[in-house]
Amino acid sequence: MIDANADPMWAAILTETAAAAEAEPLLASFLHMTVLRHNRFEDVLAFHLSSKLASPTMDARALMELFREALEADCSISRAARADIQACYDRDPACDAYSMPLLYFKGFHAIQSQRITHWLWKQGRKTLAYFLQNRISEVMGADIHPAARIGEGVMLDHGTGVVVGETAVIGDNVSLLQGVTLGGTGKEHGDRHPKIGNGVLIGANASILGNISIGQGAKVGAGSVVLDDVPPHTTVVGVPAREAGRPDEDMPALGMDQRV
Amino acid sequence: MIDANADPMWAAILTETAAAAEAEPLLASFLHMTVLRHNRFEDVLAFHLSSKLASPTMDARALMELFREALEADCSISRAARADIQACYDRDPACDAYSMPLLYFKGFHAIQSQRITHWLWKQGRKTLAYFLQNRISEVMGADIHPAARIGEGVMLDHGTGVVVGETAVIGDNVSLLQGVTLGGTGKEHGDRHPKIGNGVLIGANASILGNISIGQGAKVGAGSVVLDDVPPHTTVVGVPAREAGRPDEDMPALGMDQRV
Amino acid sequence: MIDANADPMWAAILTETAAAAEAEPLLASFLHMTVLRHNRFEDVLAFHLSSKLASPTMDARALMELFREALEADCSISRAARADIQACYDRDPACDAYSMPLLYFKGFHAIQSQRITHWLWKQGRKTLAYFLQNRISEVMGADIHPAARIGEGVMLDHGTGVVVGETAVIGDNVSLLQGVTLGGTGKEHGDRHPKIGNGVLIGANASILGNISIGQGAKVGAGSVVLDDVPPHTTVVGVPAREAGRPDEDMPALGMDQRV
Amino acid sequence: MIDANADPMWAAILTETAAAAEAEPLLASFLHMTVLRHNRFEDVLAFHLSSKLASPTMDARALMELFREALEADCSISRAARADIQACYDRDPACDAYSMPLLYFKGFHAIQSQRITHWLWKQGRKTLAYFLQNRISEVMGADIHPAARIGEGVMLDHGTGVVVGETAVIGDNVSLLQGVTLGGTGKEHGDRHPKIGNGVLIGANASILGNISIGQGAKVGAGSVVLDDVPPHTTVVGVPAREAGRPDEDMPALGMDQRV
Amino acid sequence: MIDANADPMWAAILTETAAAAEAEPLLASFLHMTVLRHNRFEDVLAFHLSSKLASPTMDARALMELFREALEADCSISRAARADIQACYDRDPACDAYSMPLLYFKGFHAIQSQRITHWLWKQGRKTLAYFLQNRISEVMGADIHPAARIGEGVMLDHGTGVVVGETAVIGDNVSLLQGVTLGGTGKEHGDRHPKIGNGVLIGANASILGNISIGQGAKVGAGSVVLDDVPPHTTVVGVPAREAGRPDEDMPALGMDQRV
Amino acid sequence: MIDANADPMWAAILTETAAAAEAEPLLASFLHMTVLRHNRFEDVLAFHLSSKLASPTMDARALMELFREALEADCSISRAARADIQACYDRDPACDAYSMPLLYFKGFHAIQSQRITHWLWKQGRKTLAYFLQNRISEVMGADIHPAARIGEGVMLDHGTGVVVGETAVIGDNVSLLQGVTLGGTGKEHGDRHPKIGNGVLIGANASILGNISIGQGAKVGAGSVVLDDVPPHTTVVGVPAREAGRPDEDMPALGMDQRV
Repeated sequence: MIDANADPMWAAILTETAAAAEAEPLLASFLHMTVLRHNRFEDVLAFHLSSKLASPTMDARALMELFREALEADCSISRAARADIQACYDRDPACDAYSMPLLYFKGFHAIQSQRITHWLWKQGRKTLAYFLQNRISEVMGADIHPAARIGEGVMLDHGTGVVVGETAVIGDNVSLLQGVTLGGTGKEHGDRHPKIGNGVLIGANASILGNISIGQGAKVGAGSVVLDDVPPHTTVVGVPAREAGRPDEDMPALGMDQRV
Repeated sequence: MIDANADPMWAAILTETAAAAEAEPLLASFLHMTVLRHNRFEDVLAFHLSSKLASPTMDARALMELFREALEADCSISRAARADIQACYDRDPACDAYSMPLLYFKGFHAIQSQRITHWLWKQGRKTLAYFLQNRISEVMGADIHPAARIGEGVMLDHGTGVVVGETAVIGDNVSLLQGVTLGGTGKEHGDRHPKIGNGVLIGANASILGNISIGQGAKVGAGSVVLDDVPPHTTVVGVPAREAGRPDEDMPALGMDQRV
Repeated sequence: MIDANADPMWAAILTETAAAAEAEPLLASFLHMTVLRHNRFEDVLAFHLSSKLASPTMDARALMELFREALEADCSISRAARADIQACYDRDPACDAYSMPLLYFKGFHAIQSQRITHWLWKQGRKTLAYFLQNRISEVMGADIHPAARIGEGVMLDHGTGVVVGETAVIGDNVSLLQGVTLGGTGKEHGDRHPKIGNGVLIGANASILGNISIGQGAKVGAGSVVLDDVPPHTTVVGVPAREAGRPDEDMPALGMDQRV
Repeated sequence: MIDANADPMWAAILTETAAAAEAEPLLASFLHMTVLRHNRFEDVLAFHLSSKLASPTMDARALMELFREALEADCSISRAARADIQACYDRDPACDAYSMPLLYFKGFHAIQSQRITHWLWKQGRKTLAYFLQNRISEVMGADIHPAARIGEGVMLDHGTGVVVGETAVIGDNVSLLQGVTLGGTGKEHGDRHPKIGNGVLIGANASILGNISIGQGAKVGAGSVVLDDVPPHTTVVGVPAREAGRPDEDMPALGMDQRV
Repeated sequence: MIDANADPMWAAILTETAAAAEAEPLLASFLHMTVLRHNRFEDVLAFHLSSKLASPTMDARALMELFREALEADCSISRAARADIQACYDRDPACDAYSMPLLYFKGFHAIQSQRITHWLWKQGRKTLAYFLQNRISEVMGADIHPAARIGEGVMLDHGTGVVVGETAVIGDNVSLLQGVTLGGTGKEHGDRHPKIGNGVLIGANASILGNISIGQGAKVGAGSVVLDDVPPHTTVVGVPAREAGRPDEDMPALGMDQRV
Repeated sequence: MIDANADPMWAAILTETAAAAEAEPLLASFLHMTVLRHNRFEDVLAFHLSSKLASPTMDARALMELFREALEADCSISRAARADIQACYDRDPACDAYSMPLLYFKGFHAIQSQRITHWLWKQGRKTLAYFLQNRISEVMGADIHPAARIGEGVMLDHGTGVVVGETAVIGDNVSLLQGVTLGGTGKEHGDRHPKIGNGVLIGANASILGNISIGQGAKVGAGSVVLDDVPPHTTVVGVPAREAGRPDEDMPALGMDQRV
């Protein structure tokens, strides 16, 4: 029923999961329910995210159906999810299986859940998007506004404490570490959050505030506070941040070199 | 049964919620159970916070009753909750309805829950207060000691990672962003945490440590570490923080200008 | 049945808990189920952690049995847990009972849970270790790799936002505040995380990145970003961190003096 | 806070329950949550019935509030509940404590729950009454129409399989064993169910069908099928039932002599 | 989206349910989640039955998907369900709405659930069928073997205590009251259970045992025990049952006259 | 780790269950958690019964530990459980696997649960025994007093509506069908319930009332009401029951011939 040739990542996830269920009886129950009984990557994603976000006042069945609806309506969501899995696999030395981000990385879960809230937002279903934003924030510790636009191949490593505001834009192949804020400034409506270029690496606990641009291939050091535009391929560091040279790599997000 | 004239915020919350339930069938169940079947703002608050903080080892009914008892015994709790909702509404451009903080902002939930633990603390029910502090910290990501004294009109934006210590005092109309620590220093008992004046704005991931005073109308930049008193109407920034001028506004917390 | 003489901390926990159950009827249910009906400290730890980490897709009974198995197989886990309780009791002025860390401190819960994932890791049960790492990260907000090696007498204060990487090593009698990252750098496998010496104090939101050494008795100021080795008994501060003198104490972790 | 003099049954329940919690640690949690933390018999009844009847689609808090509302609005419900407890205590040799029916007899739970559906029915809240009838039937195995009128001092022993129809009337001091049907006949609306006089004893699995009268002090043998009126103080037995003498007692329900 | 013209029973259910949700705030949550947010009768059936049969060891989502699969694969299941609703509506004077059997009659729930186990059985999925038989028996009190063949327009009134064996066959338009057994005799495999003709009425607690035939239009009195064939249009009564005339109606199941 | 030679029933259960988990992905989760990850029959029994009897006010972990304690303290419980499984396998044509009674027959679950309450009763832990009796009665529909003494090789077929009183005694190799009452008579304490000899078959809905003796190898017809002693190897039938010959078999319970 499964055409592994057509979907090698899904085939790998099934292989990895079947081996884990075999090796670890305590997880067999979870792995069968969550992965092995399904026929498609998308169904696993919908099931697992609904397990995470359900609560005594929001039925897991209703959430699962919603997530499936979103994944069917907008195939870019699952395409981006796969790219995000690949990003974790390529950039995180602690990740040596495709099933790991899918099943166990809450930063990954937070981004995929936001992709669904973003779909709801575009359809005008704002209240439901807010409801889910709250649950994502509670469970995964990342508070990402449904309106934020996020590219593909994004690694939200660990995810705890991450805040991404309403008008923020994150490009492709970006890596954001834990505690990163892409925040607004002021109390006026309108475009007020950062725009992050492709390939940017943002270190742990860095705050980027206001409608500023972080140029393609830039690197923001851990703990830095950025209040002004950063040119492409530039490293910034400090509180507030100042320029500190040029990253060794064209796309620092891919190499994950945290040194500045 | 509901006198909307006497309680316009409650009337607005009902109107907003009824419209949302009508527009979004998936939320109708949650919204009826949590909001629409109740007659008072206080009952919604008690119900919703008990939904959030219940667990398999702490019954939701018991928590709801406790929260109602607190809200009835000390009317300043719900008065402050309303002021905090108004603060979010006024200062957060992403908040365009009174029901949003009430239902979906975990920073708001954390503060209101702490107001209840504070009431317990004053009554000498310290163990129960600790129990709830732990649940608040798990669910909302903000670890606020029950003994901390918090004013009205406070916006705890996002709330993740916030830590507020036992002898901390937060004035009225303060805004605290995610990741803020109002922490102690040393291992001795006694007064050892910061005192935050009215109208102060504290940026994301800032740490304010020790029994120091942040004067009225001051601004602490994101990521800063403050170890000494800050005079009123002064901006500080850096690790460790140094003075960096004077905020444009008398009460920076109201304008939410994060630039320093 | 309980030999209090042989285990004074356990005896104290029982006495404290019985008094709390007597004084606070709302907690009596939780305290009897979690503490008072058990005969050993280890059984309470296994029960309580399984309450915290269970979910609709992972049965609490299965987790409790696993935790008991680990605690029986490796007695260093419970010995370290007791040392960690003592550390909280000695260093945290807000902690005046042995039962407080055990029952209510999520930083403590996160470390003890990691000690169990570490035992699993050493046995080659990596998938189960990852599963639990995910749950610990969701519930307690601390993302600690199962392979990280952690000493005894460690206080993980509050714990929210803490990230500890795969090849990190934490010595004995260390204190880590909320938001601390012991992170890697680069995307290569191998030894890439910090080594923290005995008695080190690491302030809130500090990031220590790469395979560097923080010498015994050193102090890292809050919000600092450390990219290079720190000599023993040295204070560092800033983004990036620079040396700023020598701590007053031989083991700054014990005194918890946050000033730099 | 509790005036035992004014409510000796409640005082006895508290004494019995406290002793049980002391003697049986495994039940201490349940007994504290359900009984010992409450101040009134009515609150225990509302809490315990809501524990029994709650489900993933009906919140326990909402049910508890409803049951409290009913018990406050119509004091005859709790008066009858006390009389039913006394009936179990007096007639069931296996019942040697007042707390036993309250906590552990599902026949008792079914009748008290029906008393609440009956209150709803009289108020015109038929859908909610049907909802609860369904839950009572699922959990306690007794399907009692909300419109049925039930006297005081009624013992519904075991309760499994009992069916009581819409226009049935049960007098005071009646005993009904398991499997008893007070059923209708035909498909026409209107008065179509039995009327059971005071003091009647109805044996296990007996069926009484149609708008017939079972006279005061009558006895219906186990397994009998009654299709015609039964005169007062008469024993009937068989399929279909025929007269078989006169009970030894004036009120057979009190003596529970099952012989015919 | 809903074509009421094409499905008048579904249209009626929606109208009834919307009115109930409006009138009874306490049920609004349940009714929206279970009925009002769905577009088809079949989805409500699948959702509601999965609510009933889920447990901590069987996920509600997995059951709902299974039930949907069955309802899509075999449209006779939902056709029969509609006929059963109509049967309750026509024959039970206490049923004055189409939504009542669907939502609140556990006899109806038991039969529809069995229709799904029967579909599984025919596909050779016997273990899953047994699993569900057990859950149906626990929740609804009716133990119906998955292999039993059941016609349309069947009313299983109340359902408690009903047992239907593996080789039993129930015709169309049959009414079975509570406590009815269609049981086997002996321990040999093979055809060993009753065959019930169209229009038969079987009274409460009647037992029909062995591979015998109850002829079309027959009536079995309450509490009777039938061990031999019953000719068509014949009334039997007693333990053991003997012939007792001819029913007044051609199809006694439709008239529900329990007199014999 | 499992010595199948020493325990062929356990080996068969594992083989059957592994095949079922392989064939039916939807059950794989349940079967792994409940059966396949365990090393002993007793652990499966304890786990499964605790799944059935747990509730929001009684933790599944605590129940599982209690059941294990009982099974370890009194090895006759699991020996009898195996004999009961064998009885189902031998006498019930619909049972073709040892795992079926263990996993799916609620009559079997009810008896095994009562065996545990009986162990509690003998230890003087009466309140806990009553608590569990109530749960067994709710979940499995069989209300069996903890003090009742039950032999080995007993088949409680279906179990719904069964009531067994405090001083009842059931011999070895007995078969009781659904709806059977072994009830008391009168309201006096003391020995007041039936004594059932070895090999007795009691048909559906039969009531046996009072301290009477049903002799070895007797048969009680379905729906019968027995008020007097029945000699060995005698068939009785009717309401009230009269003698009706001699069973064809020495031990009618083994042959399950329901004809009288």
